[in-house]
Amino acid sequence: RIDWISNIIVVVSPENIETMKSIIEKYGHKRVMVVQGGITRHRSIFNGLKVFAENEFSTHLLKKPEVVIIHDAVRPFVEEDILLKVVMAAKEHGAAGAIRPLVSTVIASAADGSLDHSLERARYRASEMPQAFLFDIIYEAYQQCTDYDLDYGTECLHLALKYCKTNAKLVEGPADLWKVTYKRDLYAAESIIKDNLSQQVCVITEVKEAVAQVGFLLHESLKSQIKIEAVSTSLSKNDNHLQNILSGQCYNFVCVNDKNCATQETQQLVDMLEKSNIPLLYPVVLILVHVDISENISFSIGMEEVTMIKKFAREVKQKNILAYGLLIQYK
Amino acid sequence: RIDWISNIIVVVSPENIETMKSIIEKYGHKRVMVVQGGITRHRSIFNGLKVFAENEFSTHLLKKPEVVIIHDAVRPFVEEDILLKVVMAAKEHGAAGAIRPLVSTVIASAADGSLDHSLERARYRASEMPQAFLFDIIYEAYQQCTDYDLDYGTECLHLALKYCKTNAKLVEGPADLWKVTYKRDLYAAESIIKDNLSQQVCVITEVKEAVAQVGFLLHESLKSQIKIEAVSTSLSKNDNHLQNILSGQCYNFVCVNDKNCATQETQQLVDMLEKSNIPLLYPVVLILVHVDISENISFSIGMEEVTMIKKFAREVKQKNILAYGLLIQYK
Repeated sequence: RIDWISNIIVVVSPENIETMKSIIEKYGHKRVMVVQGGITRHRSIFNGLKVFAENEFSTHLLKKPEVVIIHDAVRPFVEEDILLKVVMAAKEHGAAGAIRPLVSTVIASAADGSLDHSLERARYRASEMPQAFLFDIIYEAYQQCTDYDLDYGTECLHLALKYCKTNAKLVEGPADLWKVTYKRDLYAAESIIKDNLSQQVCVITEVKEAVAQVGFLLHESLKSQIKIEAVSTSLSKNDNHLQNILSGQCYNFVCVNDKNCATQETQQLVDMLEKSNIPLLYPVVLILVHVDISENISFSIGMEEVTMIKKFAREVKQKNILAYGLLIQYK
Repeated sequence: RIDWISNIIVVVSPENIETMKSIIEKYGHKRVMVVQGGITRHRSIFNGLKVFAENEFSTHLLKKPEVVIIHDAVRPFVEEDILLKVVMAAKEHGAAGAIRPLVSTVIASAADGSLDHSLERARYRASEMPQAFLFDIIYEAYQQCTDYDLDYGTECLHLALKYCKTNAKLVEGPADLWKVTYKRDLYAAESIIKDNLSQQVCVITEVKEAVAQVGFLLHESLKSQIKIEAVSTSLSKNDNHLQNILSGQCYNFVCVNDKNCATQETQQLVDMLEKSNIPLLYPVVLILVHVDISENISFSIGMEEVTMIKKFAREVKQKNILAYGLLIQYK
C-alpha cells in the first residue's frame, strides 16, 4: 500500500506461521517476510530485526534499512500520514513514537493495594504504535539489553533511551491507533471498517458526451461529502484506471449509461469484482443509472429495462453484490 | 435497580436539565434528583454533594448518607457487584475506587516534546469509576480544596488523600467499566447491550401439567448457557412475577401452550410489552411453541395455526416485536 516501505517483516508465533503465509499468498501481498516470534514482545521484535543483520535468520539477508518502523498488528487502522511522521522524526532524532492523551487518570498503588499517589494527567501520555528508529540505534539497544528487559519490558522507546541515550521524539497520533484488546474493540473495529467503506464511491460513465456529462455533474455534487473517483470508459474494455480503483478496495459504484441492455456491460464490472475477491469481505453496492434521452420514450421499454435489472440484481446478490437500478427518462 | 441506594443525584449541565428531567419521568425512575453542574468535573461533583449538606441547594435537604458513590455517566455498564465492593471498602478505609490494568505504557514527555521517561506498566493502574467515600471525608476534602484543584483536578481519590490523609482502597473492576469516549466506543457500547439482551430469556408456560413439563425441560437444558426465567401462568391474568420480569427488561420470550388460537392469549403479553416501552429500544423476540398432544391430530388444523401465527407475526412486527412460531405434534 505504501511504496516507500521496502520490506515488511511479520513476526508470528510458531503455530500461526502457516496461516499467516496462506493469508499473504491469498491476498498477493508483496515485500512481506514471515519470521518466528519469541515468547515475549521484545524477543519477537528482536527476532524481526535480526533478519536485517544476522545471516542465520534468513536464507537471503535483506538489505539493512536506514529507518525501521515497529508496529502492532492489534492496531489495524494505521494511516500513511502517521507512519511518515514517525519516520521523519526518527531520521532526525534517532527514535520516535506515536502518543495519545490519557483517557483515565493513572495511579500508583502501594504494596497493600491502596492508593500511593495519582499522576497529574496532563503531564503524561499513552505510548502507542507505530514507532520508528534508526536501525542501528534500536538494533544496538536490543543487543545490549538484559534478559530481564527482554522478558518483562514492553516499551521500545525505553530501550533506545536506556542503552543508546536516545530521547525519542513523541508524535501526536490519531484516535484510531488504539489497541484492539477486548471483545468490544472488535465490534468497534468492524464499525470503523464499514464506515470507511461507505465513504468512497466510483462513478463509471460511458465516454459518450451526454452520459459523461451526467457523471461529471454527479461528481461535482458529491465530492464535498465523500471521496469520489470518476471514470469515463467503456466497461467492455479492460481499463487500467478502473483496475487500480478496484485494487484500492472501492466498494461502491455508480454506473451511468444510455444503452438498453446495460446489464450486459455491467457484467464486466461484476467479473472484475469477483476476480478481485473484494465482495468476499463486505457487500459491494452497484447502482445502475440508465439515462434515456431518446426521442421516442415508451413506458414499455422502461419496464423491460427494470425487469432486466431485477433479474441481474437477483443473480449478483449471490456474489455478495447488491445491485440497484435507477431509470431516468427525459426529453 | 439497586435497592440499597437511597438517593441518586444526577448532575447535569444547565442546558440539559429539562431533557434529563423528561427522561427520568418517561422511564419512571424513582429516588432521582437533578442538580445543576459546574464548569469543571470537580465543581459538578461538589454541587452534587452539597444537596446532602447545604439548605440552599434543595427545597428539602436529603438525609446525609454514610457512604456516597461517585460515578460517570460515560461508563454505562456498572454492575451491582463492583458498586458493593467499593462501598464496603469505603466503609472500612474511608475511600475506594475501581481500577483497571493499563492497556498502553504511560510515558512522561519533556518540555521539548521528547520522551523524558516511561513508567513501568506493572506498577501503575488506570483509575476508573465508580468510587465510594465516607460522605464526611469527601465532603470535607471538597470544602478544603483550592480553586486550582476545582478547575484543573480530575481525581477524587487524590483529593481524599491530599486533604483528609485517606489512602483509598483500590478495587479491581471489570473491563466493561471503560469510558465511552470516541465514536468507536458508541459502536462497542451498542454491541454490548445487544449481547446482554440476548443472554436472557423468559419461558412462559400454561399451568396445565403436560405443558408446564415442556417448559421445565426447556429450562433445564438452557440454564447452563443463558440466564433463564420460567413462569407458569395463564397469560390472561395479570401476573405479578411476569410484570417483574418485564420491568427487568427481558427481550426474549418462549411461550409454550397446547391450545388452539394461542395467539389470542399471547396478545396479552404483547399488550404488557407495549405498555412497558421495552420494544421501543430494541426488538423483542417472541417464540410461540404450540404443543399438540391431542389424540386426533390433523394436518389441516396445524396449517390453520401456522396461518394465524403468520398473521400475528406481521401485526406485531410493526411494534418492533419479532414473533416466530413452532408447531409440535406428537401422540
